[in-house]
Amino acid sequence: MPQDRIRLASLRDKIVSADEAASHIKDGMIVGMSGFTRAGEAKAVPMALAAHAKQAHAKGEPLKITLITGASLGNDLDKQMAEAHLLSRRIPFQSDPALRKAINSGEVMFVDQHLSETVEHLRTHQLGPIDVAVIEAVGITASGGIVPTTSVGNSATFAILAEKVIIEINLTQPSELEGLHDIYIPTRRPFREPIPVVTPESRVGLPFIPVPPEKIAAIVITEKLDSASNVLPPDHETAAIASHLMEFLKHEVKIGRLTERLQPLQAGIGTIANAVMHGFIESPFHDLTMYSEVLQDSTFDLFDAGKLNFASGSSITLSKGKHDQVMPHITDYKSRLILRPQEISNHPEIIRRLGIIGINTALEFDIYGNVNSTHVGGTHMMNGIGGSGDFARNAYLSVFVTKSIAKGGALSSVVPMVSHVDHTEHDVDILVTEVGLADLRELAPRERARVVIDNCVHPTFRDEMEDYFDRATARGGHTPHIIEEALAWHVRARETGSMHAKAERKIA
Amino acid sequence: MPQDRIRLASLRDKIVSADEAASHIKDGMIVGMSGFTRAGEAKAVPMALAAHAKQAHAKGEPLKITLITGASLGNDLDKQMAEAHLLSRRIPFQSDPALRKAINSGEVMFVDQHLSETVEHLRTHQLGPIDVAVIEAVGITASGGIVPTTSVGNSATFAILAEKVIIEINLTQPSELEGLHDIYIPTRRPFREPIPVVTPESRVGLPFIPVPPEKIAAIVITEKLDSASNVLPPDHETAAIASHLMEFLKHEVKIGRLTERLQPLQAGIGTIANAVMHGFIESPFHDLTMYSEVLQDSTFDLFDAGKLNFASGSSITLSKGKHDQVMPHITDYKSRLILRPQEISNHPEIIRRLGIIGINTALEFDIYGNVNSTHVGGTHMMNGIGGSGDFARNAYLSVFVTKSIAKGGALSSVVPMVSHVDHTEHDVDILVTEVGLADLRELAPRERARVVIDNCVHPTFRDEMEDYFDRATARGGHTPHIIEEALAWHVRARETGSMHAKAERKIA
Ligand SMILES: CC(C)(COP(=O)(O)OP(=O)(O)OC[C@H]1O[C@@H](n2cnc3c(N)ncnc32)[C@H](O)[C@@H]1OP(=O)(O)O)[C@@H](O)C(=O)NCCC(=O)NCCS
Ligand SMILES: CC(C)(COP(=O)(O)OP(=O)(O)OC[C@H]1O[C@@H](n2cnc3c(N)ncnc32)[C@H](O)[C@@H]1OP(=O)(O)O)[C@@H](O)C(=O)NCCC(=O)NCCS
Repeated sequence: MPQDRIRLASLRDKIVSADEAASHIKDGMIVGMSGFTRAGEAKAVPMALAAHAKQAHAKGEPLKITLITGASLGNDLDKQMAEAHLLSRRIPFQSDPALRKAINSGEVMFVDQHLSETVEHLRTHQLGPIDVAVIEAVGITASGGIVPTTSVGNSATFAILAEKVIIEINLTQPSELEGLHDIYIPTRRPFREPIPVVTPESRVGLPFIPVPPEKIAAIVITEKLDSASNVLPPDHETAAIASHLMEFLKHEVKIGRLTERLQPLQAGIGTIANAVMHGFIESPFHDLTMYSEVLQDSTFDLFDAGKLNFASGSSITLSKGKHDQVMPHITDYKSRLILRPQEISNHPEIIRRLGIIGINTALEFDIYGNVNSTHVGGTHMMNGIGGSGDFARNAYLSVFVTKSIAKGGALSSVVPMVSHVDHTEHDVDILVTEVGLADLRELAPRERARVVIDNCVHPTFRDEMEDYFDRATARGGHTPHIIEEALAWHVRARETGSMHAKAERKIA
Repeated sequence: MPQDRIRLASLRDKIVSADEAASHIKDGMIVGMSGFTRAGEAKAVPMALAAHAKQAHAKGEPLKITLITGASLGNDLDKQMAEAHLLSRRIPFQSDPALRKAINSGEVMFVDQHLSETVEHLRTHQLGPIDVAVIEAVGITASGGIVPTTSVGNSATFAILAEKVIIEINLTQPSELEGLHDIYIPTRRPFREPIPVVTPESRVGLPFIPVPPEKIAAIVITEKLDSASNVLPPDHETAAIASHLMEFLKHEVKIGRLTERLQPLQAGIGTIANAVMHGFIESPFHDLTMYSEVLQDSTFDLFDAGKLNFASGSSITLSKGKHDQVMPHITDYKSRLILRPQEISNHPEIIRRLGIIGINTALEFDIYGNVNSTHVGGTHMMNGIGGSGDFARNAYLSVFVTKSIAKGGALSSVVPMVSHVDHTEHDVDILVTEVGLADLRELAPRERARVVIDNCVHPTFRDEMEDYFDRATARGGHTPHIIEEALAWHVRARETGSMHAKAERKIA
C-alpha cells in the first residue's frame, strides 16, 4: 500500500524510520519544512528531531537549527521543537503559544516576513542554502515528482534548492489530492517572464514538485492527520462585522463600482475572517471567486451554497467536522480548486492584476488607519504578518476587520496610535468592527479619524478618543497627535491591564 | 511656429489665452494636471487659475478644487495655488513649503498616496471623475495624440478619463522629446493582461497619449522653463553614505549574489539619493541600468561616464547647469531613455519582476528597521511617501539612506521608535548613514537593533541609544521597547528643540 504511493520504484528502498530520516539534520543546519496554516506539514521527522534535540542537549551536545516553513505548523510541532530548544531561528510565520514565548524571551530569533518573499530570498542566496527539505506528500510520481498534500506553501522551492530532500508520505491524505496543485516557479532574473496567471482558474505549472530523484535522501511513511482548525463559530460581533461589510459591498455595486460577482476574494486566517466569509452565503453576491492564501471552512460552505465558482489558495485548513465532510468527497470539489506555492498565491504581480478584495484581521488599528497585525503592546509577538501585507498593499480593496474591544473590554482595538505598524495608512482602505465600517479611501488623516471615531470605536472608549483627537487637532499637523500621549493607552494597559483612563486613576 | 507643433490642423483654432482656458475650471471640480518632481507641469493655466481664485474670493465667490498631479510641481505653482486658497484637496504628492503649511494647518486635505496607485483609483471610480485635465505637451500628433514633455506622471490617464482636456504647448521644450515616451495603460479587469515590460528597455506602448480630439477644449501656448532641481552637490556625509553602499555592493558581488552589472537601479528624489548615484561613477560596476521614477543629474553623469546603458523613468529633473548641457543634445541620449506613466515606472509587478535595487531617503528610521519618510515629529507632513513605498516593498534590495543627524546635530535621524511609519520593518533591507551601513536581512528585531546601533547611530547619540536598548531588552519581547519612553526623543525635540537628554535636563 505505501509502495503504491511511490510510483518511481527505485525510490522504494529509501523508506526509513522517522528517527533515521531525522538524523540527516545536524546542528547548525538550515531546514525547510512543508506546512502552511496547520495544513500539510511534515509530521514525523520534526517530532523525531525534537526528540534528538532533547537527547543531544541532555548529553551537553548542541543541536539547533534555522527552521523555515510555509507558515504555521499543526500537531503542536512548533511547541515541541521550541520546548526541545531545537530552534535558533524561525522564518517566516508561526502561531504557537510555546514558540511565541521563546520568541518573546529572546531565545528564538524570529524573522517575521511577507509570505511571498521568503523564496525570493532563498533563490537569490540572501537566505540559505537549505541543507535539508522535509516535505509531506501524497505520493511520488513515476518521474520522482513530489505530490504535496493539503498545502503547497514554500515546499516546491525548498525541495528544488535543498541539498537533500526527506519525504513524508502520509497515507491518511487522500491520493485524490493529486492533480489539485499547480507548481509554478518564476523564471530567473534578468530574464524573468510575466507570471501567466490571469484569473484564479489559471493553471500554469505542474501538478507535482520536480526534483532529481537522487536528491531524495529518505522517505518516511506516516498516518497522522492534519490538526483541525481552531476557528470559533460566528458570534454576534463577527456577524455584525460581516453584515457591515456586506452593506458596504452592496453599496459599491449599487453605485456601479463593482458587479454582483465582485472581484476575487482573499480572506485572512482565523475566526473573524472565516465568519466574514460566511456572510457571503446570505448575500446577493454570486458567481464569486477566491484568490486567497488559506481556504477555510467558509470556502466549502460557499461552494455548497452555490455562491462560489472557484477558489485558489496555498492550503486547506478545516475544522474536524468540515474535514470529515469534505475530504472523502474531494474529487467533487477538485475541478473548482487550485493549491499554489505561497509565492504565487500571494504574489504582488497577480494580486494587483486580479484586483483582489483582501479581508484581513487586525490586532489593533488607529484613528489614522495604521494597522498592527503582530505586536501586543508594541513589543510582544503574536503570530506574524503572514500574507496580510502581500494582499493589503496590492489589493483593489484592502479591508481590515477586528472586534472593537479585547480582553473583556479592558482593551480597545482602536487606539490613538498603534504600538506597531504592519500596514501603513497608505495601504488600508476599509476598517470594520462590530460597531460599524469606516471607508478611508481618498481621505486625509483628519477626515479618517472622524470616520473611524464615529464608526468603529467602542462606545466605552469613544469619549476618551474624541477628547484625544480634539486636543491633538488643536496642536495642528497633517496627522494630529499629542506625541507624549500617543501611546498612553498602551502604557496604561501594561501598568493596569486596562486602557481605560479611570483604571489609571484608580491605581494612582 | 506654434502651429507646427499642432499637426492635427483642426485643433489649431482651439488656441486661447491661459486665462480663457482656466475659466473651464469651476468651483468644486476635480482637476488632473501634468507634472512630476518639478518636471513637465502645466504652467500657465494653474497660474491663471490661482489668479481667478483670488478674484473670486475677493468677491466672496467660492473657487476651490481637488488637484491631482503626478507628483510635485515646479515654478512655485503649489505655493501660488495654496496661497490663493484654491486647493481644498491635493493628491498624491507635493514638496512645497507654502502648501505644506496649509496641509499642516488643516486647510488643505492632503491624500498621501503610493504614486503607482492614484490612476487605479481613478480608473475604478473610487476617485474622480476628472472634470478637466491640464497637460503640458511638446506638441499634438496628426491623430490628436498628446506628446508629453519632461514627465509623463499620471498625464495619460488624466487625459483619457477627463471630461475636457486643456493642453499647454511649451515651445521651450525641445520637439526632439517626441519618441521618448512609452504610454502603456493596463487593460481592464477582469481581463487584465500581464504588463509586457521585461527589461528597463522594453517599449510596450505608444509615443503619445491617445485622446479623441473633440475632448480637447483649449490649447495654450507657453514658453516657461521647468524649474531647475534644487539638489545640493555631494558633500562629505553624502560621499560617505555612497561609499558605504558601494563597499556593500562590492561585497555582494564578491560572494556571488550580484554581478558587476548589478540589477536595475532606482534612486529617490533629493540630494542624498543623487549623491549616492554619483558614487557609481568611481565604482567597479558597469553596464548599469536604471528603472526609476525621476532621472536626476546623476543619470546623465553616469551616461557620460560610460557606466549606464539605459534609464527608464517617469520624469527628467535637472539642475540649471545640467539642463543647459543635456537638453540641446537630448537626441544623443534618446535611444537610451524611456519616460513612462508613473503607474508603470512604479508598478509592483515590474519592480518585483526586474529585481530592482531601490535607494530612497528616510527622514528618520528606528533601531528595528521601521522608516519614516513623511512626518516630522509624528505630526507634520514634509512631502509625502511618493514612490518610495512602491519600490521598497517590491524591490530585490530595499535601501534607505539618511544623514545620521539633522538640524545641526540637535536631532538624531536614528531613533528608538519612529514617530510615523511609512515603510515597515518587513520592507527594509539596508540602512545607511554617513556612520556606516546596517544589513538587516534575515535578522530578528533584537539583532537588527544591534547592527543599527553599531553602524548607523551618530556618536553623540550612541550611549543614549545603547541605554534605551539595554533597558528595553531587560523587559523582554520580540521587539523590545519601553513603551512609555519609546517616543521620548520626539517629545524632547518638540519641547526643547533637541533630542539630547541633557537639553531636557537643562530645561528642567
Ligand atoms: C491579528 C490576529 C492575531 C487575530 O487573530 P484572531 O484569532 O482572528 O482574533 P482573536 O480576536 O481571537 O485574537 C487573538 C488573540 O489576540 C488578542 N487580542 C485581540 N485584540 C487585541 C488587542 N487589541 N490587544 C491585545 N490583544 C488583542 C485576543 O484577546 C486573543 O488573545 P488570546 O489568544 O490570548 O485569547 C490574526 O489574524 C493574525 O495573526 N494576523 C496576522 C497574520 C495574517 O493576517 N494573515 C493573513 C493572511 S492569511
Ligand atoms: C525624506 C526626504 C524629505 C529627505 O529629503 P532630502 O532633501 O533628501 O534631505 P534633507 O536632508 O535635505 O532633509 C530635508 C528636510 O528634512 C529635515 N530633516 C532631515 N532629517 C530629519 C529628522 N530626522 N527630523 C526632522 N527633520 C529632518 C532637514 O533638516 C531638511 O529640513 P529643511 O528643509 O527645513 O532644511 C525626501 O527624500 C522625501 O520627501 N522622501 C519621500 C518621498 C520619496 O522618498 N520619494 C522617492 C521616490 S522618488
